[in-house]
Amino acid sequence: MKRTAFFISDGTGITAETLGNSLLSQFEAIQFKKITLPYIDTVEKARQTVEKINAACEADGEPAIVLDTIVDEAVSNELAKSQGFKIDVFSTFLKPLEKELKTHSSYTVGKSHAIIEMNRYKERIDSVNFALDNDDGARTQQYDRADIILVGVSRCGKTPTCLYMALQFGIRAANYPLTDEDLESPKLPEVLQKHRHKLYGLTIDPFQLAAIRHERRPNSRYASLDQCDFEVRTVERLFQLHNLPFINTTNFSIEEISTRIMAHTGINRRGD
Amino acid sequence: MKRTAFFISDGTGITAETLGNSLLSQFEAIQFKKITLPYIDTVEKARQTVEKINAACEADGEPAIVLDTIVDEAVSNELAKSQGFKIDVFSTFLKPLEKELKTHSSYTVGKSHAIIEMNRYKERIDSVNFALDNDDGARTQQYDRADIILVGVSRCGKTPTCLYMALQFGIRAANYPLTDEDLESPKLPEVLQKHRHKLYGLTIDPFQLAAIRHERRPNSRYASLDQCDFEVRTVERLFQLHNLPFINTTNFSIEEISTRIMAHTGINRRGD
Repeated sequence: MKRTAFFISDGTGITAETLGNSLLSQFEAIQFKKITLPYIDTVEKARQTVEKINAACEADGEPAIVLDTIVDEAVSNELAKSQGFKIDVFSTFLKPLEKELKTHSSYTVGKSHAIIEMNRYKERIDSVNFALDNDDGARTQQYDRADIILVGVSRCGKTPTCLYMALQFGIRAANYPLTDEDLESPKLPEVLQKHRHKLYGLTIDPFQLAAIRHERRPNSRYASLDQCDFEVRTVERLFQLHNLPFINTTNFSIEEISTRIMAHTGINRRGD
Repeated sequence: MKRTAFFISDGTGITAETLGNSLLSQFEAIQFKKITLPYIDTVEKARQTVEKINAACEADGEPAIVLDTIVDEAVSNELAKSQGFKIDVFSTFLKPLEKELKTHSSYTVGKSHAIIEMNRYKERIDSVNFALDNDDGARTQQYDRADIILVGVSRCGKTPTCLYMALQFGIRAANYPLTDEDLESPKLPEVLQKHRHKLYGLTIDPFQLAAIRHERRPNSRYASLDQCDFEVRTVERLFQLHNLPFINTTNFSIEEISTRIMAHTGINRRGD
């Protein structure tokens, strides 16, 4: 079974897409063709969108799912003319919220991903720069400013996790790769010792690590299963020996790794 | 006026938080204290959460807003016992969707940000590595593999935008900084010429550029308003001369810059 799903917004489309993906992931039996249409902010664009939706409905032989977060009533009304099955997120929730909050909503377009919270936005961009500057143990003198320092072997997921934490939450995340040399001793590397309370370990299944490294440096010792297995076992022992919290990244997305670390450590997003 | 808002999830909390921020941004008159609680996946955790919500309700003297995306009925029912004003996203939309799709939802927890779409997830991580490898014009020989190449002066927003496009959409975004030297000639730098169709310009208000650069290198020529003004004027002329599409990043968030570029160029996310 196949159905088309449209995520439509007068802004970036991120809210519509995020909610749409969450809802549709609950229907595993159905294969969805997902189409995100951002910046549908005029009646004319809505009219063109209705044509696209109707074409999909006819091609599928079933109504398309249409999830929208459009604020403007005229644009939303135009969109309602399609043959799709419409889930109108804002009108569903804004009316009861207005009642509860005893105030009218401002019905303004695309607020949430615009730079309304300048402070918070600046923290996010600063944190991206921090993550880049403090990637791969390059500038350990900035660890004083870090909210968290991820440690683990090469290619276990440190860098994407740091960048995600920075972009999404404005968290200053540094990372330090534990190399063969670091793993020779049961001590933590000296640069890390005074930041012990900020350290969080990442580990990974050795088979997956070998596969990831193999893409980077095919047939190298670095990518061999023996080497990966050795590094992972040693690093996990190091985490345990020093009582460092750690997470196995193998079956988790960067969203899950990041939010689990935050929930576990109690680190808060910056700029709030 | 102040109200507390809880965004509660049995998974990462990203959907609840994204939707919650969108909805509440429509109520500008009210200042919200926002609290995201992810991984509330047992009745016991829900019970503790109810206590937190009730404490906030009492402190505010008004019911807290409670937006949740909890799938499990027992956990959700426990949460419903709080004194907060509950917006139950999944039960609101899943029932009508089940009817329309003529199938039951799987009611499984935290699917959407788990690695269910392995292919798409891998593209995202690969794209992050691509963005890092191709940041700041470092490795122009990989431009063949790029989906897009952002060009602009130093610190106009190229790197965070590339990383966001990679993390959120799996797009391979490289960037090339146009330096003083590049700006001496009305020609495009040679490495860019054969990728003309992939180029997208970023520009920025000179005052904002000077402020950003000043944080990086205080009181340098690089950060002076004269220099920033010269670079921005020259780069905009270059974009116009070569008919390159470009966007002024001054008042846009990286979400907006990214999605506007995608909407304009028609670049699709990878791994779909």
